[in-house]
Amino acid sequence: MTSSPASKRQRTSSTTFPPPYELLYWPTIPGRGEHIRLCFEATGTPYTDTCNDDQKTGLNALRTLISPTNKGSPTNPPPLAPPILRHGSLLLSQTPNILLYLGPKLGLAGADDDPNAIYHINQLALTALDGLSNEAHDTHHPIAIGAYYEEQKEEAKRKAADYISKRLPKFFGYFNRVLQGEASKGGEWLYGGQLTYADLVLWQCVDGVNFAFPRAVGRMRERGEFGEVFGLYERVRARENVAAYLESGRRLGYGMGIYRHYPELDAEEAEAEA
Amino acid sequence: MTSSPASKRQRTSSTTFPPPYELLYWPTIPGRGEHIRLCFEATGTPYTDTCNDDQKTGLNALRTLISPTNKGSPTNPPPLAPPILRHGSLLLSQTPNILLYLGPKLGLAGADDDPNAIYHINQLALTALDGLSNEAHDTHHPIAIGAYYEEQKEEAKRKAADYISKRLPKFFGYFNRVLQGEASKGGEWLYGGQLTYADLVLWQCVDGVNFAFPRAVGRMRERGEFGEVFGLYERVRARENVAAYLESGRRLGYGMGIYRHYPELDAEEAEAEA
Repeated sequence: MTSSPASKRQRTSSTTFPPPYELLYWPTIPGRGEHIRLCFEATGTPYTDTCNDDQKTGLNALRTLISPTNKGSPTNPPPLAPPILRHGSLLLSQTPNILLYLGPKLGLAGADDDPNAIYHINQLALTALDGLSNEAHDTHHPIAIGAYYEEQKEEAKRKAADYISKRLPKFFGYFNRVLQGEASKGGEWLYGGQLTYADLVLWQCVDGVNFAFPRAVGRMRERGEFGEVFGLYERVRARENVAAYLESGRRLGYGMGIYRHYPELDAEEAEAEA
Repeated sequence: MTSSPASKRQRTSSTTFPPPYELLYWPTIPGRGEHIRLCFEATGTPYTDTCNDDQKTGLNALRTLISPTNKGSPTNPPPLAPPILRHGSLLLSQTPNILLYLGPKLGLAGADDDPNAIYHINQLALTALDGLSNEAHDTHHPIAIGAYYEEQKEEAKRKAADYISKRLPKFFGYFNRVLQGEASKGGEWLYGGQLTYADLVLWQCVDGVNFAFPRAVGRMRERGEFGEVFGLYERVRARENVAAYLESGRRLGYGMGIYRHYPELDAEEAEAEA
């Protein structure tokens, strides 16, 4: 896969147009949409990233879908929030739900002869999203999602200190154990000896948490903690399609989304204040 | 289904022993395990509730499974936390994941000729769990899950006020729209004109939120708000199997779990302080 100089958002050299998969998510940030993007990018699957391709048109489409007056269609309930996937006439929301749908279609749901693989992979993805995405978000918005960080900064410091000292090690430790376990089939990937979407979810979570808390995560790496997790992180990053994507203009920088870097929330600052 | 006078925990008159499905969850509280229990109960499916049948043995089994030294088995990754479902040699965790697995087996995943039903139902269940279970829990533990409520009471008041005024109406409003939408096929159930596990999840969430915030929810009902949601709540409760379950000793009372009633967090007390 090469990035076209004509358009930094050109995703593939495929001639399929329009691509069958459309992602609708807030533009300019990776956010929860990034988990969906990574599945497409890691497998070289063509997709449309509507809100990043054309912010005005895209945001209009997104806002119509999540409007408090939208009651859905005869076949699709309304989505509450993005990310939203459109595939033909099907419209789905909820990150782990979209991943569940795409996983088997993109070859990211384990071996064909393992009927339980999808449930194990879904379990791992849900756990990573719970502890390393949702909880990481809540460190900067512990009181009210609709209010500014500055209005809940003191509470955020306390929550971040707890997150860094207790929750992050708990979840990293869990995934370290998963990788050490026999069901990983060798410890290279989380489940079944092959790359699945659970690995891509964990990769994005580790990358995001590292952006938000570079001192806390750096300290873990220096101490040699959670080596299996960081090993998986490097393996995903080194994959040809993933590496090409990360160097392309399509990979968006972190901003005011789920993962935010506030130095006062990182180790040791938050810990000292808590 | 009748409750045996010999054992208040007798779940069914079936002669299958042991039942094929085993639930492992913290004893004495409904918690997240209740979503799994309701699927079994509403369909008259035999199951073992290990930790409530014998707390000592059950807790030992549960603690072994979630121990920080458990690396799982050759086919099952370790669970991070309960609820855990055992079905034959399969071991699954994560509430929405267990529901996803059980749904089709128990006839709670929509029409057989609707291949997308499971994704729509999963989306609805995930959304209810996000906004009406996880966020409701966080109102009394906004800062640190591992610390006491009393250590974060002031923050809890602020979070509860935001939850009651903004988040609860957002999620109730969403499900009201889902019930008004065409994909519900008549507005009796959330999706496809028949009872699915998404309805059972929403029922338990509404019941739990009503326990935690009786004044806030009572006010909504008095004002005639979210009529479709409360209508579904009553329809689920009136179903024969569900009604029998709720009157049995198997239905556990709320305690120090996800849903807690602290008067100071309910309307209008929390709102006045915020």
